[in-house]
Amino acid sequence: MSEEYRAMWEGLGINMRRHDMLLTALPEIFQQIYLGQQQRPEAMGFFDFVVSQIHGIRVKELMDHKAKGGKVFGTFCVYVPDEVIFAAGGIAVGLCGGADFSVPTGEQILPRNLCALIKSAVGFKIGSICPYFQAADVIIGETTCDGKKKTWEILNEYVPTYVMDLPNCRTAADRDLWISELKRFVDKVENVTGNTITPERLAEATALINRKRAAMDRLFELRKARPAPISGLDALLAVQISFYDDPARFAQKTNELCDELAARVQAGQGVAPAGAKRILYAGTPMPIPFWTIPALIEGAGAVVVAEESCTGTRLLAGGQTALPGDGIDRQLAAIADRQLQTNCACFTPNDARIEDILRLAKEYEADGVIHFSLSFCQPYNLEGIRVQKALQQAGIPVLVIDGDYTQEQAGQLKTRIEAFLETL
Amino acid sequence: MSEEYRAMWEGLGINMRRHDMLLTALPEIFQQIYLGQQQRPEAMGFFDFVVSQIHGIRVKELMDHKAKGGKVFGTFCVYVPDEVIFAAGGIAVGLCGGADFSVPTGEQILPRNLCALIKSAVGFKIGSICPYFQAADVIIGETTCDGKKKTWEILNEYVPTYVMDLPNCRTAADRDLWISELKRFVDKVENVTGNTITPERLAEATALINRKRAAMDRLFELRKARPAPISGLDALLAVQISFYDDPARFAQKTNELCDELAARVQAGQGVAPAGAKRILYAGTPMPIPFWTIPALIEGAGAVVVAEESCTGTRLLAGGQTALPGDGIDRQLAAIADRQLQTNCACFTPNDARIEDILRLAKEYEADGVIHFSLSFCQPYNLEGIRVQKALQQAGIPVLVIDGDYTQEQAGQLKTRIEAFLETL
Repeated sequence: MSEEYRAMWEGLGINMRRHDMLLTALPEIFQQIYLGQQQRPEAMGFFDFVVSQIHGIRVKELMDHKAKGGKVFGTFCVYVPDEVIFAAGGIAVGLCGGADFSVPTGEQILPRNLCALIKSAVGFKIGSICPYFQAADVIIGETTCDGKKKTWEILNEYVPTYVMDLPNCRTAADRDLWISELKRFVDKVENVTGNTITPERLAEATALINRKRAAMDRLFELRKARPAPISGLDALLAVQISFYDDPARFAQKTNELCDELAARVQAGQGVAPAGAKRILYAGTPMPIPFWTIPALIEGAGAVVVAEESCTGTRLLAGGQTALPGDGIDRQLAAIADRQLQTNCACFTPNDARIEDILRLAKEYEADGVIHFSLSFCQPYNLEGIRVQKALQQAGIPVLVIDGDYTQEQAGQLKTRIEAFLETL
Repeated sequence: MSEEYRAMWEGLGINMRRHDMLLTALPEIFQQIYLGQQQRPEAMGFFDFVVSQIHGIRVKELMDHKAKGGKVFGTFCVYVPDEVIFAAGGIAVGLCGGADFSVPTGEQILPRNLCALIKSAVGFKIGSICPYFQAADVIIGETTCDGKKKTWEILNEYVPTYVMDLPNCRTAADRDLWISELKRFVDKVENVTGNTITPERLAEATALINRKRAAMDRLFELRKARPAPISGLDALLAVQISFYDDPARFAQKTNELCDELAARVQAGQGVAPAGAKRILYAGTPMPIPFWTIPALIEGAGAVVVAEESCTGTRLLAGGQTALPGDGIDRQLAAIADRQLQTNCACFTPNDARIEDILRLAKEYEADGVIHFSLSFCQPYNLEGIRVQKALQQAGIPVLVIDGDYTQEQAGQLKTRIEAFLETL
């Protein structure tokens, strides 16, 4: 990472000593996990570059945006509608914390019995070690789990945190509630940005996010090919970067990647031998730089063909958002109707998620499913029990595990993952 | 416990060997914790009798009710409206599991990282060791926490489990959602019982539950006296029994207890020396037979004057339910409006709970507050952080702890509670 951003970080109140430690560690890990892979697509160069500049170039863009009066919204969930934020001239950036580095800092104010993601994210904020957090004018939380729901109340003492009330079920009454929350969010975003969200601007922003979604859909469609044209690690990296990169640029770069992958598929080329076991990942999201699970799977000679996760197919659920031409209310309902097809474990019942996993295992010709959830993530820990049962009944090999971001955990997970792969 | 109920238990499919173990252990624990207390009110005799017959006499009443075609609804939360169940001629019984005895059984199908209450309750069902669970025609769950929300999906494979969709917030839209859930519940209860809920029957049942609530309110009002006229252990026992006893009988017996306590207050008599430290308990519910916390506090010479808990003041929040005379919809709205004053940690924001605790500490002249939550109960674990801060700011001594139902935990809690009491 270049020295040119130091003044910017200092201006953002970054704890430079700890931030230097973080930015020293990351390239080594990235080198070790990513750059030694065989047959990487050339178009991954863009995504590698983004990682190499992880707290630099994009943060600079955010600061330039803010210098012109623009606002930055930090988010944690695919249920927070980027469309609304961009329609008001704001920028949405995903803030999910995926680094063990900041977990002990989070534990200074949070209970240990909480998932690593929440502790990592809060640790980044209270330790002043994430420029995205520092650049955000407001954090948009949601009520997807007990841990996040109650953590926002605490985080709000450190940074303004607005909470969207995502319901527990998906009845008609819950849909009404969610649409009313989207309307309340429009008011909030207008208030923060000082800009009015017109139907035209919302349509434009929805089309922008649709283009980004289409590019990622294409990437996932190409991953169905045998042999797999891209590693699970590389596909995950692209998805991780989708949470904070500029949407238009991301769509373009992902389409360039897809062009290259399409040529590979046409030529029957892959990243792994034709006989490599194909693994469907299912479970909790894998925020950057949490690459442990695909690294272990692919390090053992298998290939991850898809992720049923919020850093995977759940992000893309519902496909393209409809663009009704008759006003904000109908547009928000279209966003809600697209979103509510995302089968988060926060919902009950959530049988559709189990059906998704069975369908994805078939469509991606998976030899087995690895269900991973962060420890203390009760929605996914508990849903894993029913997922396991359903896959066993369908005759699909499955491994259900949980863990955190630590190296200690990685060691234990390695043993279990390798033992599972040997049975396939 | 008399032998006369053995045939009934066998008919209910009870695992007799394990049930015998449970019923052998309970009287010893009860003797040790309860019967050695000084200056117990005579009227506690009724509640002692109920405990001595814990799986007998009330279960027999439920079975007689079922023999006449009546239905039994098992519940776990003060948000499930007993009024609706009794209005349809059903009987509601609280099923919260408070015994470590069944936790290992629950852990056979549930993750360990889940609160003892959920594991105990599920263990009672799948181990066939609770006649109330066996007698229930349907279990009514709710979406108050991730643990319960997702456990119902699993429990439903063992016993029909209906889920009420309690929202995460309390905006006008959430209130509408909850009222729609109460309407859906009316349909469900009518369907299960085969009886129609008329406005007259609902008014009658609401008045019945109001009488029970008034008796408990009176008990809590009397506990404000100095010296305390009743131990925290005894008051808790009465509240625990309120969850499953016949409401009319419970109201009568609790009023008899209150008559005796009122005479004590008048005479300036108490259960503890005038100088005994007065403790407000705040936190998660203490289902029967989880008596550890007040036993430790009172064993160290202090007295628990109130419980800000669902086995305490949260159960009574909102006072008497209004009785509008103009139809079911208005009646359900009145129930909702009373219920939504219960400041469960499932809600965000939930500042009103912190205000409740500050107010109760003052009203009950508490020398300190002990906030206890079950381990892995994320809503209360996390809210405990803000409770602690608010109490410290108000200059009220506070101890925030978490734990489970085991004897090992009790040992650690004893040390911490005694150390806290010494500082007062």
